[in-house]
This record gives sequence, C-alpha cells and structure tokens, in this order.
Amino acid sequence: MSREKTYNFAAGPSVLPTEVLKTATSELLDYHGSGMSVMEMSHRSSIYQEIFDETKAEVRKLLRVPDTHEILFLQGGASTQFSMVPLNLMGEEGSADYAVTGNFAGSAAKEAKKYGRVNIAADTGESNHTRIPEQTELKLDQNAKYFYYCANNTIYGTEWKYVPETGSVPLVCDMSSNIMTKPVDVSKYGIIFAGAQKNMAPAGVTMVIIDRALAGRELPFTPLMLSYKTMIDKDSMYNTPPCYNIYMLGLVMKWLTKQGGVEEMEKRKTEKAAVLYDYLDESRLFRGCALKPHRSDMNVTFTTGDKELDARFAKEAASAGFLNVKGHRLVGGMRASVYNAQSMEAVVALREFMKEFEVKNHE
Amino acid sequence: MSREKTYNFAAGPSVLPTEVLKTATSELLDYHGSGMSVMEMSHRSSIYQEIFDETKAEVRKLLRVPDTHEILFLQGGASTQFSMVPLNLMGEEGSADYAVTGNFAGSAAKEAKKYGRVNIAADTGESNHTRIPEQTELKLDQNAKYFYYCANNTIYGTEWKYVPETGSVPLVCDMSSNIMTKPVDVSKYGIIFAGAQKNMAPAGVTMVIIDRALAGRELPFTPLMLSYKTMIDKDSMYNTPPCYNIYMLGLVMKWLTKQGGVEEMEKRKTEKAAVLYDYLDESRLFRGCALKPHRSDMNVTFTTGDKELDARFAKEAASAGFLNVKGHRLVGGMRASVYNAQSMEAVVALREFMKEFEVKNHE
Repeated sequence: MSREKTYNFAAGPSVLPTEVLKTATSELLDYHGSGMSVMEMSHRSSIYQEIFDETKAEVRKLLRVPDTHEILFLQGGASTQFSMVPLNLMGEEGSADYAVTGNFAGSAAKEAKKYGRVNIAADTGESNHTRIPEQTELKLDQNAKYFYYCANNTIYGTEWKYVPETGSVPLVCDMSSNIMTKPVDVSKYGIIFAGAQKNMAPAGVTMVIIDRALAGRELPFTPLMLSYKTMIDKDSMYNTPPCYNIYMLGLVMKWLTKQGGVEEMEKRKTEKAAVLYDYLDESRLFRGCALKPHRSDMNVTFTTGDKELDARFAKEAASAGFLNVKGHRLVGGMRASVYNAQSMEAVVALREFMKEFEVKNHE
Repeated sequence: MSREKTYNFAAGPSVLPTEVLKTATSELLDYHGSGMSVMEMSHRSSIYQEIFDETKAEVRKLLRVPDTHEILFLQGGASTQFSMVPLNLMGEEGSADYAVTGNFAGSAAKEAKKYGRVNIAADTGESNHTRIPEQTELKLDQNAKYFYYCANNTIYGTEWKYVPETGSVPLVCDMSSNIMTKPVDVSKYGIIFAGAQKNMAPAGVTMVIIDRALAGRELPFTPLMLSYKTMIDKDSMYNTPPCYNIYMLGLVMKWLTKQGGVEEMEKRKTEKAAVLYDYLDESRLFRGCALKPHRSDMNVTFTTGDKELDARFAKEAASAGFLNVKGHRLVGGMRASVYNAQSMEAVVALREFMKEFEVKNHE
C-alpha cells in the first residue's frame, strides 16, 4: 500500500506531517549545501548549533515558555523521567503526590517509591481508568515535594480537562501524548516532559521544560546524565544529543507554526475528535471506552463489546488501509490516535469505514 | 559546498556512507510500500520488529557475538553507561578497576565513585595521555567487580593494541570510537558499549553487548531504564526505543557486511591511517601528537607545534573542503577522524593538502 492510500492511527510512534517528511527527504544527503547530512554534523559545530537553537526558540514561541523555564532535549523517553523527576526533586526523606490515572502514571509512582515516600493522591484503577479524578477528589499533601500527573492517558483514552490546583506544591506533568495540541500556561508547572514520538518528532528525544529554580537538588547517587542541573548547565549537550531527532523536532515545530500554532491545533483536535465521538454516541454497534466528560481528544478508544467482532474490525480496517487501530491489550477494543499530524480526511474516512462496518454487522 | 566537494573529518557525529544515506533518502517517505516512514512505525508492529531483529542479527554476525551475550540498543550515549556500569556491576560496597587513558575514561571513573570504590589501575595523565599503559603497568585488584577501559581515545588519538588480561575480573570496555573497525573476541568481555555516532549510526542510540550472567545485580536505587536486566528482559523495548536511529544502524551494518565485514574494515583502517602517519613521520612541518606505538587508527592527531600555524591550517583546510580538522581543545593542533565511512580518497586528498601546506609554510 502506498502512503497515499493508508491512514496510520498508531498511538506512538505515529504519523508525521507528509510535508515535514518531504523536507527531511530533500535535505537528508546534503543540508543546505553544507556538504553534510544533519546526521553527520558535529554537535559542537556552528551549523548544528543553529539548528538546535532554532528548534528551542520555536518551542519557546509556540508554548510561550517563560524565561524562568529551561527547555531541554534529552534521551530515554518518559520512562527515564519517571526516575529523573524523583531523583532531582524528592530530596532526602521527601515525599511526593501522584495521581494514578493510567498505566504510565502508575509506573511513574512505582519508580518514585525507590527514592522517597509516595502519596497516591488519586487512583482511578477501580474503574479501569475510564475517568479522570475531580479536583475535590485529590488527596493533596501540602508538604509534598511535587504533584505528579499524566495529562493524557494514551492507553485508556482519557485526558485531564483542568490543571490541578496544588497551592505551592510544584506541578510535574507527563504531556507525552498531548503536548503541542493546545495552549498551556507553562508558568503553572515545575516540570513538563514529553517523549517526542506522538506529537513532535520520531522517537529518541524527550523534551523537558523545567523551572530552573527546581534544579540542583538531586540525590547524591543521581547519575550524571539524569541530573537536570547538568543538562541545564550544558544546554542539553553534556554529551552528544540525539542530533537528528532534534532536527526533525525542529521541522515539525516549524510546520506547526505555519499551521497556526497550538491555538489552531486546539481547534483542529476538537473538531477531529468530535467527528469520531459524535458518531460513537449515536452508533448502535460501537461505543466509547472512556466516560464522556473525560474522553481524550488524542486517543479515541472504542469497542463493539464483542472481542471477536473487535478483532474482525481491526483486521478489516487494516486491509482497507486504516493502520494500527487495534486497542492496547490493557483495554482491548480499538483505538484511533489523532495527534496533530493526523488529517481530518483520515478521521472522516475512518468514521465512514466504521459506519459501513456497523451496517454490515449490526443485527 | 556540495557533498561531492567536501571531506568531513569530524570526530563524531561523523561521516556516514553516502550509499546508506541514499537508501535512507529513498525510503524515508514510504518504507518498502508500507505507506509509512520508519519514523512513524509503532515499535510494537511486526514491520518494525523485523527491522529491529535484522539489525541485531547483523551486529551478531559481524562481531560474532556468542550466545552468552545479549545485544542491546539503548539511549543516553556512553556517558549514561558511565553510570549504568557501576549501578549494575558494583554491588554493595564493591570496588572496580579503571584505566584512565583519556578524558572519557576519567569521567567514567569519576562517576563510578558515586557507587563504590574506584581503583585507578593506570593513569596516563602525566604524559597528557599520549600513550597507553603496558599490561605490566596495570595495578590490578583480583577482587574488583570489573576492569574498565576505553579502547580508543578520540581526543588524544591513542588506541589500545591489546586486550588487558585481568584473570577472572570481567572486562568492561567503551568502544565508542573503534567498534566495528576490526574483529573483537567478544567472549573475553563482560560488557562492550559504544555510542553509535562514530562508526555505526547517527547519534541517539548506544549499543551494549553484555554477558547475560552479569545482569540482575543492580543497586536498589538503579533507575529502571538503567537496569541491564530490564533491557535484556524486554529486548531493549521496555519503552519506545530510538526506532529510526536503530534502522539507520541496521543500514550501516548491511553496508559493512557488503564491504566485507570487520575484517575488511581492519585492512582499510590500517591502510588509511598509514597514509597519514607515514607522511607525519617524514614531514618537516607536522608531527603526530600520540606516541608511535600507541597511535589510534581512528583519530589521527597532529600539530605543527605552532598554535597560530595550526589555526591557519585548520582554517585553510576548511576553505578547501576538509571539514572539522581542528583538534580538541584539550590537545590543540589538528585531528583527522578516519572511521569506517571515511574513504581512502578523502585521506589521500588530506595528505596532499598537508604536503602543499608544508611546502608553503616550512622555511
């Protein structure tokens, strides 16, 4: 199947803008007449430094990152942040609040227990994470070193629609799956981190936005590369960064800016998600997995309620060019991920395919 | 300047085979008719798994990695291994032997002190690391948990020409700058690691070859992503790996195999290095920085002995298309890195340029 005839609904790594991939293709062998591929450039060269600086500047502009906050490009994915956050923020004998609204928040809380006390401020496991806790449900500890949550739960298809109020306790947020999809008041956060492979770039680079005031408190056994202070001091280049991945992230950010920035992305994501949710709400075959007020605009999870029928749908969808719509094994059913690079055309085509499937399969 | 008119002598990230970059270019938008770029593939998909498995198999074949050893593709560069090695091997109250033959081995030794006792088995700092210690000089501790060394010192241009004998103490080796340039008896090593950006792939993936028997002894506060056991158990995919970087590594490995493997690379590197060293030995303007028996076949460091003249050479060389020949600030002078992807043509052209410079500048 050709690129023109397929729609990739993968949850991450996921579809990238075709325009960006075309630019990357045209520049791969020789970047701007430098005689080198970006893949071959010394990270200490002025030509690469320019790419790096432009990428940072583009992120800062798109998310209106205030001067109090540093932007880092690291490695190891969100899972490395699960350790890096407590290693740097917990301090000796400290404790932290975790809202467990899914698999990844749960893993983060588990990892944090290695480094301090963990207070589970909320846990939606009893409902198989079909919802997000209300502010009033959060059991907050005023002495916590930070409050941790995951803004969008890729597997379960739920999304926080509000920013938790935690007083003077710094907010730490895993935005891997909804960063750059709407404006964010960065000043409210101590740390925002995000693996790039959903909305920003190919896998292999993790963006961290950190209030500089939080750096420099790492536990004594913190690995050097897992110290925010090291990375702030060295502008993400203590050692060789993932240069090409950062370049790709830069291309995607430029594309985003050209589209109208995160304000336009918010408009589009709301429209795209509505196409699928409106249909799911009226369908007599399919239903959404997450509770309505908590549904994610990024990952639309749905099911027929019948395992065999679900499997058939995923299989027939793949044959028709709708790739990667099988749900995660923890939820089952189906999942359509509609990140920034996913087109309205793809979403409408999927809905039409679902409608046809419903006609054929609903008694 | 176009790609055809430049020679990139960067120490890493460094030149990649043009053939590989051309393949990457042709596959970037749509990999083998899948309708997706490799950058967009789910790491859990069968199509990506095939790329991953092929890459591992190619590495195993090229280096004849025995079944006792696992091949991992991690993130964070060699600097992350500086922590990961002691975190996993040191144990409670353990000690380790470090041979400090350069900047990176020194950083590794310093980092290891966070996790246990470090015995400096050798330190060539007194000679500004112009040489490698002899076997008889090594102060070995029979109770060390491991013996650590860096096989090639990129900055200083020295290279170990022998494998240290350490009895039952496992060898841990940073081969970032000379992996895949000659056959290696992997069975002699507990751990071999290498950042990819010199001989294997664009920056962003770190290869680790580890004797499985060494895994599972990590200190209790080891970050999950820095546990070799986690990564062995999950075949490097506890979380999303740097998928595209691994794909690129696979392309380079296939290119290597086509060239004749590491045996052919050994032949070529010896010839390429000789072109430069033979000239340096007879030049009346330039001289090599490292001591003759310890000179690296990867990074040829040289100087005129005159800072201003060195700077002029680097500048004129760059204008003539010889990129990145300025030496590292710790050594000064010049450095020509001649990894696998560097052509004999480039090396001969550089030597001719040096000869011309000598004629013009030697009284």
